[in-house]
Formats: sequence, structure tokens, C-alpha cells
Amino acid sequence: MEVQQNFSLAIEILGTIAFAMSGSFAAMQKRLDPFGVLIIAFVTSVGGGTIRDLILDVPVFWMHDMVICSVIFITTIVSMIFKSVEKKFKVTLFIFDSFGLGLFTIIGIQKGINADLHPLICITLGTITGCFGGISRDILLNRIPLIFRKEIYATACIIGGTIFLGLVKYSTLSYAFVQVSTILLIVAIRTFAVKYHWEIPKFYGVDNSSEM
Amino acid sequence: MEVQQNFSLAIEILGTIAFAMSGSFAAMQKRLDPFGVLIIAFVTSVGGGTIRDLILDVPVFWMHDMVICSVIFITTIVSMIFKSVEKKFKVTLFIFDSFGLGLFTIIGIQKGINADLHPLICITLGTITGCFGGISRDILLNRIPLIFRKEIYATACIIGGTIFLGLVKYSTLSYAFVQVSTILLIVAIRTFAVKYHWEIPKFYGVDNSSEM
Amino acid sequence: MEVQQNFSLAIEILGTIAFAMSGSFAAMQKRLDPFGVLIIAFVTSVGGGTIRDLILDVPVFWMHDMVICSVIFITTIVSMIFKSVEKKFKVTLFIFDSFGLGLFTIIGIQKGINADLHPLICITLGTITGCFGGISRDILLNRIPLIFRKEIYATACIIGGTIFLGLVKYSTLSYAFVQVSTILLIVAIRTFAVKYHWEIPKFYGVDNSSEM
Repeated sequence: MEVQQNFSLAIEILGTIAFAMSGSFAAMQKRLDPFGVLIIAFVTSVGGGTIRDLILDVPVFWMHDMVICSVIFITTIVSMIFKSVEKKFKVTLFIFDSFGLGLFTIIGIQKGINADLHPLICITLGTITGCFGGISRDILLNRIPLIFRKEIYATACIIGGTIFLGLVKYSTLSYAFVQVSTILLIVAIRTFAVKYHWEIPKFYGVDNSSEM
Repeated sequence: MEVQQNFSLAIEILGTIAFAMSGSFAAMQKRLDPFGVLIIAFVTSVGGGTIRDLILDVPVFWMHDMVICSVIFITTIVSMIFKSVEKKFKVTLFIFDSFGLGLFTIIGIQKGINADLHPLICITLGTITGCFGGISRDILLNRIPLIFRKEIYATACIIGGTIFLGLVKYSTLSYAFVQVSTILLIVAIRTFAVKYHWEIPKFYGVDNSSEM
Repeated sequence: MEVQQNFSLAIEILGTIAFAMSGSFAAMQKRLDPFGVLIIAFVTSVGGGTIRDLILDVPVFWMHDMVICSVIFITTIVSMIFKSVEKKFKVTLFIFDSFGLGLFTIIGIQKGINADLHPLICITLGTITGCFGGISRDILLNRIPLIFRKEIYATACIIGGTIFLGLVKYSTLSYAFVQVSTILLIVAIRTFAVKYHWEIPKFYGVDNSSEM
């Protein structure tokens, strides 16, 4: 049980690092000053989980735990230093964002399972945890929101989450194995989708919203 | 009493359908993939009520109730199918959005009354419930926020809400009748406002915000 | 003790007036109708504090207290009347926004101290209280978010907050004096930063986010 808890903590820290990096790089790309970069990194990392915890009415995860805040602080500083030798913003941002998405989706679903909620609500919480940090980052930075673009983003999150929940409930595989494999599956779906230009059929309406 | 509860549930479901449709159509108009459409439909439907419940510190209404989630899911799928024969996005979106606004405003005020809050706070909660789902949808989709446009939106919500509260407190009319008539009043105010180009006088400052 | 409480209430009311004015002027600048102006004034004033209270899991401060709502209501009406003789939106908005930032940052940190939280979390809560009302206002009004611009905004908030916390913990100065002086410090940092074009070195990446 303790091993399992340590493992879940490790996943939470990895997800926090991934999203803090993703937020830092996006903010530096938009030329914010260091404190602005720190705020964006913070919102990207804790945004989804904060909304999830508020909805679940449990204590917000980063409030009484200095580990998460310290991790974000250190990651942001490392990103700033690392930045000076790093030019490939797009690829870096994409990779960290994908890992953060996978890691946080699974954490969100686990919290829903622990609260004995309906599977559909669990997947909803996973999607909120995975997607809302990145969505908040994009809204704050005036970027085109990720869910908008051609990349398979929410889709990877929902498919991966559904498979995770199915395996946890109906398979005899070890919990840790199911965690790691579904996280990698979410990252893989997004990566291959972008690499091979996979696309889900979209709706072709006339975009006249701005005139409405 | 039970009749009253069933009636309130019916109103909640109708409002959820209306906003899920409004969210789905807006998302399809912006050419999102089916999962993106689902997320936008979800946020539009539950966004306002979620913020209201968090502020009231009561359990979030869709957490332990599969009815709302199922309604959103089914409505979104029906909207996607219906879409292929539906071209008049603007009118459809407008009608559903107006009904959602009216229905949710009244639900929000009722929750405030049940919690014994001051009338001004009740109207605030009604406005949050009615407007914030649509506002979230517009922010996520990068649309010009509804409250921005010429349409009388928040105004309809505040006027209708105030009349509802006055009738509930000081009239002897049946509760159900007051509910239905104020909902229709909100829809009517918005519809006539758009149809006959009603406008509330606005402030004509120089819009130099972007240079600031 | 009572004097201290009255003093804190006075600060809260002043901050509310400052942000309600800032929200009203920004909304009038964008030519919203009076009800839209009221909503923006409300969100600007209570946005940051609401998120803080939800995270702290304490009752939202404006729910059971008609003082705050009345102050916002009256301030908005006064701003609308005052508007007709007021042309210098930029300067007015800037001054009120700066005072609101200083006042609310200190209130947020105080609430964190009262809840016995880690200093780093206290500064985070102060930053949320100070910045998120203005950020919400800018997102709702489609303005370029303040934290984005050249002005030293979040920076003033974080520096002032850190000094406040240090003086409260390690100095023997009176609490009221520390409050007033750090609030004025935050306003001073922002004002001088804008006046003398102070700038924190930023990151010069290529801004290609829109193509991503």
C-alpha cells in the first residue's frame, strides 16, 4: 500500500514538473517577465487539480503540501536557465504537455475512484484534471486553446481514461502497470496523431460566430 | 411538495438540454472534433451551476446525479446527428441559449432562497448560474463573449430575476406559474430585444484599451 | 483587537471600491450597457477573493455580508455618473487598479496567516487575491491581460507581499503601520515602474505560438 502511495506521489510530481515546464516555456515564448512566468507555470500545474478538488470538496492538494509548490518553483527556475540553450520551443512544449496530460488524467480518475463516484464522473474528473491546466494557460496567454487545434488532445485523454478505468475494474493486471501503460498510451496517441496527421472527422459548419 | 420538486427537476433538465445544445452547436460551428464538442457542451451546461454550488458550499449538482451527465451526453449526440440537416446555426443557438438563460437564472435564485440569503445575493447567484456557462463557452471557443454584444443578455437575466423574486415574496400566485412566466419573460425580453433592435444606452468612451 | 478588525474591514472596503471602479471604467471603455458594467465591476472586485476563499474552504466573503455587495453597487453607479465628466480613462484605471492590487494582496496574505499556512502559500494566496480579479476582468472584456504588458504587475504584488510577511514575522513595527506601508510600496513600485519605464529583463523567444 505504501509502495502504491509513493508511486502515485511520484506520478503527481512528474505531472507537476511536466506542466510547470510546459507553462514556463509557453510564458517565455510570450516574453513575460520571470514573475509572470512563475504565475503561468503555477496555474498550468495546479489549475486542473484545483478545480477537481474544489468540485470533490476535498482540501486543495497544494495547500498543505510544500512539495508541489517547491517542485513548481524549482522547475520554473530550471526552465528559465535551460531556456537560454533551448530553441525548439514547439517540440519541448509538446512533449511536456503530452506527459502532463497523461499523468494528470490518471490522477484525476484515481481521485474519483477513491471517492466512489460513477465511472462517467471519474472520467469527467480525469479530463478536467488533465485538460484545465493547459486550457487556463492558453486563456491567460491569449494563445489559441489547445483543444481547438487539429491535435487529438481531449480525445487522447478520454480514450486513455476509459481504458484505464476498464483495466482497473475488470483486469487482474497490477495497478502500477495499468497506470504506467495508460499514461504512455495517452502520450502515444497524441504523439502519433501529430506525427502522422491523424484527424477525427470534424464538423464543417460555416464559422460565422464573429458576426453573430 | 413532491410535485414542486419534480417540476424543478424538469426545469433543470430542460435548461441542461438547452445549454448542451447551445454549446454543441457553437463548438460544431468552430469545427471541433466530437470529443471537443462534448467538453464544450458539458462546460456550457454545468459551468454556471458549478460556480454557484462552489460559492454556496453545497455538493456540486452533477457529481452524484447521473441524470444531468446522461442528459448532456445524449443531447450532444443528438445535436451532432441533427446538425447534418441543420444549417441555421445562428437562430438555433440563439433560441436554446435564451431558454437556458431563463431556466438557469430561476434555478440559481431558488437555490439562493433555499439557503436563506439576501435577495441581492439571490439575484447575483441567478445571474452567475444563467450567464457563466455561456461566458465559459465563449471564452473557451474564442468567441466574442455574449455579454459584449448588442443583445440584451445579462439585462434580461437581472430584470427577470428581480421580478421572479418580487412575485415569490409578495404575490399569492402559484410558485409554478411564477417560475414559468418569469422564464418566458426572460426569453421574451431577449427575443424582442434582438428582433426589434432594442438597446440600452451604452457608454461611449474611446476604446483605446488595446494600446494601454 | 477591535481596532485592528475595523482597520482590516476599512482596507477591504477600499480595495473593493478601487477594483469596482477599475472594472466599471474598463467596461464603460468597452461600451457595455449598465448591467454589463455592473457584472464586470462585481467580477473584478470579488473574483480574486472568491477563488482564495474557495481554495481556503472558508465561506465566500461576500455571501453573508451585504456591505461588500452594496459598496460595489454604489461604486458602479458613482463611476457611471462620474464617467460623463471623466475622460482620462487610462490614468484613472491605472491608479485604482494599483491600489486594489496593493490592498487585496495584503488581505489575501492575512487570510493565509490566519489559517496558519506556510509563508510561500500565503504569498500565493495574496497573489491570487490581488491579481485574479483584474485577470478575470481582462479575460471577460477581451483586453490584453495586464500581466502580459510591460508594467510590473505581478512582480509588485510578489515583492510587496514578501516584505509584508517578513515585517509581520520578524519586526516589532505595529501591524497597521506594516499594512499601510506595504500597500503603498506596491502602489509605488507599479507607479514608478510605469513612470520611469522600469522593466524586468524578459525572455526573448520567437513568438510563434499562433502558428503552432
